[in-house]
Amino acid sequence: MSATSATPFDSLSALCKDMSALSGISGILGWDEQVMMPPGAAALRGTQKAALAAVLHDKATSAELAAAIDAAKQTPDLGPFERATVRDAERGYKLAVGVPADLERKIAANEVASVQAWVAARENDDYSAFKDQLKETLALTKEKAEAMRPGEKPYDTLIDQFERGMSAERLTEIFDGISSPLKAILEKVLEMKEKKGKKVHPALCGGEEWDVTRQAELSKDICQMLGFDMDKGRIDVSVHPFTGGAGPEDVRITTRYSKELPFEGIMGTVHETGHAMYEQGRNSKYDGLPVSDALSMGAHESQSLFWERMIGQSVGFWEAVLPKIHEKLPHTKDVNAEDLFFAVNQVNRSLIRVEADELTYPFHIILRFELEMKLLNGTLDVKDLPQAWKDGMKQHLGVDVPSDKLGCLQDIHWPSGAFGYFPSYSLGAMTAAQLYHHLKTEVMPDVEEKIKSGNFKEIKDWLKTEIHEVGSLYPSLDELLEKVTGEPLNTKYFLQYLDEKYSKVYS
Amino acid sequence: MSATSATPFDSLSALCKDMSALSGISGILGWDEQVMMPPGAAALRGTQKAALAAVLHDKATSAELAAAIDAAKQTPDLGPFERATVRDAERGYKLAVGVPADLERKIAANEVASVQAWVAARENDDYSAFKDQLKETLALTKEKAEAMRPGEKPYDTLIDQFERGMSAERLTEIFDGISSPLKAILEKVLEMKEKKGKKVHPALCGGEEWDVTRQAELSKDICQMLGFDMDKGRIDVSVHPFTGGAGPEDVRITTRYSKELPFEGIMGTVHETGHAMYEQGRNSKYDGLPVSDALSMGAHESQSLFWERMIGQSVGFWEAVLPKIHEKLPHTKDVNAEDLFFAVNQVNRSLIRVEADELTYPFHIILRFELEMKLLNGTLDVKDLPQAWKDGMKQHLGVDVPSDKLGCLQDIHWPSGAFGYFPSYSLGAMTAAQLYHHLKTEVMPDVEEKIKSGNFKEIKDWLKTEIHEVGSLYPSLDELLEKVTGEPLNTKYFLQYLDEKYSKVYS
Repeated sequence: MSATSATPFDSLSALCKDMSALSGISGILGWDEQVMMPPGAAALRGTQKAALAAVLHDKATSAELAAAIDAAKQTPDLGPFERATVRDAERGYKLAVGVPADLERKIAANEVASVQAWVAARENDDYSAFKDQLKETLALTKEKAEAMRPGEKPYDTLIDQFERGMSAERLTEIFDGISSPLKAILEKVLEMKEKKGKKVHPALCGGEEWDVTRQAELSKDICQMLGFDMDKGRIDVSVHPFTGGAGPEDVRITTRYSKELPFEGIMGTVHETGHAMYEQGRNSKYDGLPVSDALSMGAHESQSLFWERMIGQSVGFWEAVLPKIHEKLPHTKDVNAEDLFFAVNQVNRSLIRVEADELTYPFHIILRFELEMKLLNGTLDVKDLPQAWKDGMKQHLGVDVPSDKLGCLQDIHWPSGAFGYFPSYSLGAMTAAQLYHHLKTEVMPDVEEKIKSGNFKEIKDWLKTEIHEVGSLYPSLDELLEKVTGEPLNTKYFLQYLDEKYSKVYS
Repeated sequence: MSATSATPFDSLSALCKDMSALSGISGILGWDEQVMMPPGAAALRGTQKAALAAVLHDKATSAELAAAIDAAKQTPDLGPFERATVRDAERGYKLAVGVPADLERKIAANEVASVQAWVAARENDDYSAFKDQLKETLALTKEKAEAMRPGEKPYDTLIDQFERGMSAERLTEIFDGISSPLKAILEKVLEMKEKKGKKVHPALCGGEEWDVTRQAELSKDICQMLGFDMDKGRIDVSVHPFTGGAGPEDVRITTRYSKELPFEGIMGTVHETGHAMYEQGRNSKYDGLPVSDALSMGAHESQSLFWERMIGQSVGFWEAVLPKIHEKLPHTKDVNAEDLFFAVNQVNRSLIRVEADELTYPFHIILRFELEMKLLNGTLDVKDLPQAWKDGMKQHLGVDVPSDKLGCLQDIHWPSGAFGYFPSYSLGAMTAAQLYHHLKTEVMPDVEEKIKSGNFKEIKDWLKTEIHEVGSLYPSLDELLEKVTGEPLNTKYFLQYLDEKYSKVYS
């Protein structure tokens, strides 16, 4: 690119691509830290990450970038993806430039201390030892939110970081809409479950036969069968499963396997494969530009949950993979697809979010949404969080929380300052159901036949065209859904899906 | 560190540490590329490396750095390590700032094309297809050398990049000094070998019993036995073995195993362990400062070869590891330490440098040294390289080179622009012999007993104190050797070691 022929958009693109390349490096470092790094390198890695973050911050707040954005904004004849690139570059610049470097440093240092204090408090089941630290983390988070978007409600700003275009008001509307009908479905399903009294097949309850090497081989096989491209990615093992790496050409899935929870590895892999195919499916025409990024955390979660729940928890999927299961895990030879379907769709009221099934999961999220909203607007004091948690769990799920370890100390999100993140999990689940409903009724009436025969290519291609390649073109999940399905997020599809599916499981 | 209390040296240190952290990231990316990266990510990785290199280049040539160096130079009361830090920071700055960014970009782009052309030419044994590309690479390398140190002889500048304080003149003196006596030893040894006619034990000639998983376990075991700290490092497999990573806390060894060349994996691991312990042993007090860096390529190679040859190729070493060998490779049960010693010390005149033994290896280096000196000073034309190579191999080693593939196309160094690198290999070998001689005669008379009993700790500790922690304090290998052994590099120890050892092998 010579300086004379570069358009203002080209100049902005070059700056964005440079930042994208450095962010990709940060992604590789993050993956390496979780999967490969020797333990003694932790402090060194902290220094490396801080050095790279400082470089990225300088670039993200540079006068050069501001000027390039201004110049590109004046260009009259940009296409929609180009306009969205300029829009998102400006959004990113404004969010970054508002936060003083000193505050960023304070937040980074506090995060380490806060997470450490939380780990200790959780281990000792001692909320009082964490309370003051949480107060500080909350205060810094609020300060940053105010710096990013002065005059806006801090909680809306925080939500917007993870879920663009979303607000506490719209979330309240969504969650208020599902709470009662979901409770009715849950009660009906649990009653059916008790009445029926059917047990999970003993071969599917875990144990020594669930060799983890064989589980890993099976998972890798299934992952590729769904459409993950191993030429542009890897699958490894980590303590906390995630999908990371550095963009479409280098997507790295991690998962974990246990003999005690035999479906954690396989279902976790299917979930991460959904995330990974979103990343691999990003629009290569706009590679390195913000418009090619995944739209939001909710959009990302919609892809992982689409594959995990709509597909991976369907009876058809288990018919498709049954021969592989029998081959790799010979002790399951008497098990059929219905047994597997039943085993992976068990509903229970539980205390821990990450172990919850899809029927009870939304209540875990609604509770966190209500509490973090109150923490942020000051109507709940940090010291009263444990009791508020217990009251909320009783109200929403009807369970008694015996300890803070199994209560408000269970998640890393708040200790690490990620207020506003939780709703994305449920937005993803609801989006997945709406997408699947649309796919089945309007686009691919034989989708269940396809799943049953292990033919996932057209499903993946549809998601790629409609979601992955569209990236951040539209400024919110609601608008993306309207484009793809004809209406913004509508919770009825989620409720309908849960009702039909679990009536089937326990009928 | 507050701005008010920072001394000029502190300010310089902070800049050096920042660059060191970013270089460490580059080390992790390099390792990942060779060991973990999915193949489809190659182009993306190129973009990431270029982005990071540009950031590092900006920092290495910044006015801020220049000012910090100037200020630190004025500080009167610096200790020796601090003075060496300022000296090396200035050296680095001057070398970097002299090279125009445009030339750096041209060199980076040319390197990719040059290596690609070389790969194809080597595959097809077609030097003529690579000739023009090599000419361009040579011209750019020369241009860079002139930019780095205007007015100096380009070849000296290139040598100095890898081997600080070294010159073509001193190398000529060194190589001239060993050439004839080494030839005499080689001829004597080959005559003894023929006369004796002893063969390597059949269990040690490779084959199906050399299971690579068991080889890898054995190698890892030996690596830790020698003193590699797995808390601050890893061992993996790669096509081309190397030691990389990101400094003392994160040192990553790679090796390769084959059933056909059964000692390649184990001896390769011992070699890389020598490099790795140099890295792990660097002075933590000056972490992130240039004075803590390894002194030179020759110094680094002296450590890998010390462990590979002085220790790993001694009969005592094989006595120490014999039980492990018998356990992991049961088919070797009838083999003793003498058999292993004999197997790993075979001498042959050969065509390929990387397969050469330690007696013939120096001739491969002397040939390359003579040729690259002539290429650089213009007395050898690129088109005449193949014939000059053949003539040189005949003269130095008495072998006929049947093809350029097995001749001047065998190494990646020149295609990638690394002129001046080869001599470091032999400087390392000679340094290792001198260090070992000094250790045995002046410091640790029972070193052979220690090796035999598998007690390597004191040997490692001595190297750590004398070499690793000293880092780049002294400005040349000669000066380091003078400090440690009382005299600069003296080739007599190398010749004496080879003569004694191989007379023993074939007696």
